[in-house]
Amino acid sequence: MELYEAMSTLRAVRRLKADPIPEEVQGRILQAATWAPTGGNMQPWRMIAVTDAGNKQALEDLYRPYWEAYVPGYEEKMKSMPEAAQASSRRALDAGTYLATHMHEVPLIAVFCFNPSIMTITDIDQPRTSVVGGGSVYPAVQNFLLACRNEGLGCVLTTLLCYEEAKVKDILSIPEDWYTCAHVPVGYPVLGGHGSIRRKPVEEMVSFNQF
Amino acid sequence: MELYEAMSTLRAVRRLKADPIPEEVQGRILQAATWAPTGGNMQPWRMIAVTDAGNKQALEDLYRPYWEAYVPGYEEKMKSMPEAAQASSRRALDAGTYLATHMHEVPLIAVFCFNPSIMTITDIDQPRTSVVGGGSVYPAVQNFLLACRNEGLGCVLTTLLCYEEAKVKDILSIPEDWYTCAHVPVGYPVLGGHGSIRRKPVEEMVSFNQF
Repeated sequence: MELYEAMSTLRAVRRLKADPIPEEVQGRILQAATWAPTGGNMQPWRMIAVTDAGNKQALEDLYRPYWEAYVPGYEEKMKSMPEAAQASSRRALDAGTYLATHMHEVPLIAVFCFNPSIMTITDIDQPRTSVVGGGSVYPAVQNFLLACRNEGLGCVLTTLLCYEEAKVKDILSIPEDWYTCAHVPVGYPVLGGHGSIRRKPVEEMVSFNQF
Repeated sequence: MELYEAMSTLRAVRRLKADPIPEEVQGRILQAATWAPTGGNMQPWRMIAVTDAGNKQALEDLYRPYWEAYVPGYEEKMKSMPEAAQASSRRALDAGTYLATHMHEVPLIAVFCFNPSIMTITDIDQPRTSVVGGGSVYPAVQNFLLACRNEGLGCVLTTLLCYEEAKVKDILSIPEDWYTCAHVPVGYPVLGGHGSIRRKPVEEMVSFNQF
């Protein structure tokens, strides 16, 4: 798939089928993640590809209450959105609720981990310290999402499980010095899946020489 | 360009020509950044496209001492690398020194900013707080890098200027509640530019069900 077509149609897909992902497809989306740049080429991230039924159910059980707690605050934010944005945000919330109760069915949950001690830059004052660390892991996550799009797989970047990191680490045997920063359920879309996305115009996002 | 070809040949290009970027090309790389997903579709980032000669020189003057201070530590890390990695890291350092003294010449420096107060998730305990916030800005940065690759433009994700954020904010009139997290010089490559990249094999980066 052409790069801009993949990027411009990569939307969050939260209604995912249980159908398995062929091994060669899975191999390609995993490899795409590893191609991402990282500071000093240190690659201070790892991914755990969760496919085990028990592990997936355990992650869903941890995720669901945080999703339910997240919804009211986002509904509050929606009130200040333009009408069209409200409608699409409502559909996204409904799909999110679907995901929160079907996560155990998806064929794959990609859990991205990072280790601050092997990042090149970690000693900058808050709040930039670790946002900057994110520069050595989220490019890999974005590569992974784009690769899923390329393969016709639905996916969505979630972070709510960071609230239950201790338990997630326990379930997946993640060592003490590694942290989690993204949990991406992947599967074939129940409906059409990808398509148009809603973003602010370039003129609102980019300025020249002055903020 | 096909997605996987772009990803697998996106390497850091630090020797960049002063040649201008055609307006339509510039328009496409800026738009590609805006397509990226963000938490709750809040798009809590902005980019300042720095093209003004004075601003570029000012950023180079701030950058150079941090580059010079960064080199010895990285050279120390290199000692524990395999020989092939040492050689390519040496070439990267030399190219980095070129960049540190020619940054004022590049046609464009993209400065990515973010605002934690409009991010959906900011209240998770350190060190994950703001790494997770990075999930709403570095996907845009990665889209931008891939778009540059697609257009034959060289680029590299740098973060050293975060150490001089106060001065950068002053130069670019960045408001108090916005922070900087990536500075991407962009231009046509002096040499071939893109090509093979050196990454760990998938088996080292990805495991199944357990870390």
